[in-house]
Amino acid sequence: MEHNIVIYNGILLTMEEGVPVIEDGFVHVRQGKIVHCGPNHSDLVENLSRHGARMIDARGGIIMPGLVNGHTHTPMSMFRGLADDLPLEVWLNEHIFPAEARDVNPESVEKWAAHSCREMLAGGITTCCDGYFLEEYAAKAMADTGIRAVAGQGVIDFPAPGVSDPCGNIDHAKAFIEKICGLSDRVRPSVFCHSPYTCSKQTLVAGKNLARDKGVLFQIHAAETRAEPGMIKENKNMSVIAYLDSLGILDPDTLLIHCVWLDEKDIDIIARRGCAVIHCPESNMKLASGVAPVPDMVSAGLTVGLGTDGCASNNDQDIFSEMGTAAKLHKAVRLDPCVMDARTCLKMATIDGAKALGLGDVTGSIRPGKAGDIIVVDTTGLHMTPMHDPYSGLVYAARASDVLWVMVDGKVRFRKNLS
Amino acid sequence: MEHNIVIYNGILLTMEEGVPVIEDGFVHVRQGKIVHCGPNHSDLVENLSRHGARMIDARGGIIMPGLVNGHTHTPMSMFRGLADDLPLEVWLNEHIFPAEARDVNPESVEKWAAHSCREMLAGGITTCCDGYFLEEYAAKAMADTGIRAVAGQGVIDFPAPGVSDPCGNIDHAKAFIEKICGLSDRVRPSVFCHSPYTCSKQTLVAGKNLARDKGVLFQIHAAETRAEPGMIKENKNMSVIAYLDSLGILDPDTLLIHCVWLDEKDIDIIARRGCAVIHCPESNMKLASGVAPVPDMVSAGLTVGLGTDGCASNNDQDIFSEMGTAAKLHKAVRLDPCVMDARTCLKMATIDGAKALGLGDVTGSIRPGKAGDIIVVDTTGLHMTPMHDPYSGLVYAARASDVLWVMVDGKVRFRKNLS
Repeated sequence: MEHNIVIYNGILLTMEEGVPVIEDGFVHVRQGKIVHCGPNHSDLVENLSRHGARMIDARGGIIMPGLVNGHTHTPMSMFRGLADDLPLEVWLNEHIFPAEARDVNPESVEKWAAHSCREMLAGGITTCCDGYFLEEYAAKAMADTGIRAVAGQGVIDFPAPGVSDPCGNIDHAKAFIEKICGLSDRVRPSVFCHSPYTCSKQTLVAGKNLARDKGVLFQIHAAETRAEPGMIKENKNMSVIAYLDSLGILDPDTLLIHCVWLDEKDIDIIARRGCAVIHCPESNMKLASGVAPVPDMVSAGLTVGLGTDGCASNNDQDIFSEMGTAAKLHKAVRLDPCVMDARTCLKMATIDGAKALGLGDVTGSIRPGKAGDIIVVDTTGLHMTPMHDPYSGLVYAARASDVLWVMVDGKVRFRKNLS
Repeated sequence: MEHNIVIYNGILLTMEEGVPVIEDGFVHVRQGKIVHCGPNHSDLVENLSRHGARMIDARGGIIMPGLVNGHTHTPMSMFRGLADDLPLEVWLNEHIFPAEARDVNPESVEKWAAHSCREMLAGGITTCCDGYFLEEYAAKAMADTGIRAVAGQGVIDFPAPGVSDPCGNIDHAKAFIEKICGLSDRVRPSVFCHSPYTCSKQTLVAGKNLARDKGVLFQIHAAETRAEPGMIKENKNMSVIAYLDSLGILDPDTLLIHCVWLDEKDIDIIARRGCAVIHCPESNMKLASGVAPVPDMVSAGLTVGLGTDGCASNNDQDIFSEMGTAAKLHKAVRLDPCVMDARTCLKMATIDGAKALGLGDVTGSIRPGKAGDIIVVDTTGLHMTPMHDPYSGLVYAARASDVLWVMVDGKVRFRKNLS
């Protein structure tokens, strides 16, 4: 009975379709995988306890799948709050790019990626999708801190940290994929082409072909700002999404990040191609990119996850806060209090985020056979009391600081100091 | 030297106009009042320590004025998360009004107002402006918990808890003011007329006259929803603000709450009359009321504070979260990353909020002569590191759970368990 963990005495939200809230539930994890979950089964729980299982008392809190941060740049925590409240060009050209040229190196990437992973784990995030340069060092931090991750090597047609000659950017990404295979079962490589306006048509196609060859996720920032179509040299007539589609790079293994400036036709293309989208509401707000038409994407059946974006544009990596913002922002701009209800936002932050990253069979919900990526959220805080509904409590009142326990693959990676 | 408190070893943000960040500052509070503040003065600090002052080590965190929550309904924490994501009429008529009729009584008002006060204190809020029915019981909770407050007795032309016959609503408010004078120096009475659509012209004028006679603040929800002008029986042609102005009730002692649907003329009226406004971004978003033109109000020189609104429509009382939302929301809808910079949002949450409530000489900034309403915010959390700028850190990354110490009138009302 070694390697058994039982989490009990909590409100169980499995986030599996059709499974209701289980007021007094438990989860049994064996050798990193969920083997049993459901309403409290005292005979089974007592038997496991007697046979030496590690018993985690949720103390009446919420037992749920770990959160998924669908988009971040983990090493950029080094630039948290470096410059804010500035026009995009000033922010990028006078602050972020010079700071990157000065401060980004293998040591800083590993150090601050590890910092971000610990920040995310402490806030209940068990899976993240990352993209940056020198990504092999970020991937090492992910392996070491214990988070589950998709690690994307950045590809851009400019000299970048680790790739001084952009002609080598695709070869570099290929070498990255080969290097980090085998690093950890939890860390999957990916190709992250920065954007349609910083990568040429040739680079985008080569990046996607590499991802296809290697069977990995292809990520790209797309339709983030209103100005983006005009910034793409090779595209004069099409929307950003139509342009990407014309290159043949949209498919279920392509992840589109931001998607703020979409029209109905764009949403239709994305739906037909089966791409998933990551919505980063706080980054889009802080950088004044705009408000993505997420309720329309959801109505069209797209898989939409939530992301924090990097710390230079957010300035934290807190999915509780993103859920609350996503739930409220779209209500305000549409003058409709019914859009983006609490459960929809919680799905985006868990199972839909996992599906978006190609990890829907691995994580994002609690069901036998999935990884033991589980968190416990305290519900006894003054700001959480009374709690008439756990979905509402999690989306509209809970904070990252309410997370009590975090495990990935059944291994405890964070535990709050309880007084 | 009794009754001396010294807060030292922290970054001091006084929020006084023109005073820069003091990297290593201290504040000396004597008998509840600030007597000295500025850069670390080791001789003075050591001398105070030797003579028995209570020494509070800020541990390198931020020492700043307590936050001001400019609008809440403290007893409504009993309805936190009771119903969400619903159309306004369904939410009010099928959930909130029946729950109020069933559950609101002197005991529940006192109990949940106290709960809200403790929630606010723990989140660094040292002053709140409240409005509800049976407000004498809420005021008692404010006096007992130690928060500074403006307590507004609700006035509405319908039967309400404690005022079964609305004909007696003004007399009831008068009796309330007389009753709570003397309860505590920290708790000031106020008249809270619910709105222009739930109070007749006569009630509004009588409410304002009562407030004038007694020298207290007059509060009113105004221009919250797009539908509001059409809901005012006695007004067919004017904007809500013009209507209130036509009744002669706008002056510097009138506090306008929400002000989502204002045009330029309305802002001009408010500026000329010298009213202050409380912006409740998260409530306006969650209830789909819309986005208030706050950057225009600020440009026009209006005094604008921040409020959480009650827990039924937010669902917490967290001014850190409101600051972050205010900073980001207006950038997104105006596509301008320069509006609502971090310092502006922090001013709204402190000194401007205090001015809005008529307490600008008492609280909201750190300066000799003002009350010892001071908080210390931890800056060592992973989500706060590195901190390139304290204003940015507080607005874009800090959480209510980062508050370490809270004092009101020099009395410690909250202290985080430090491990």
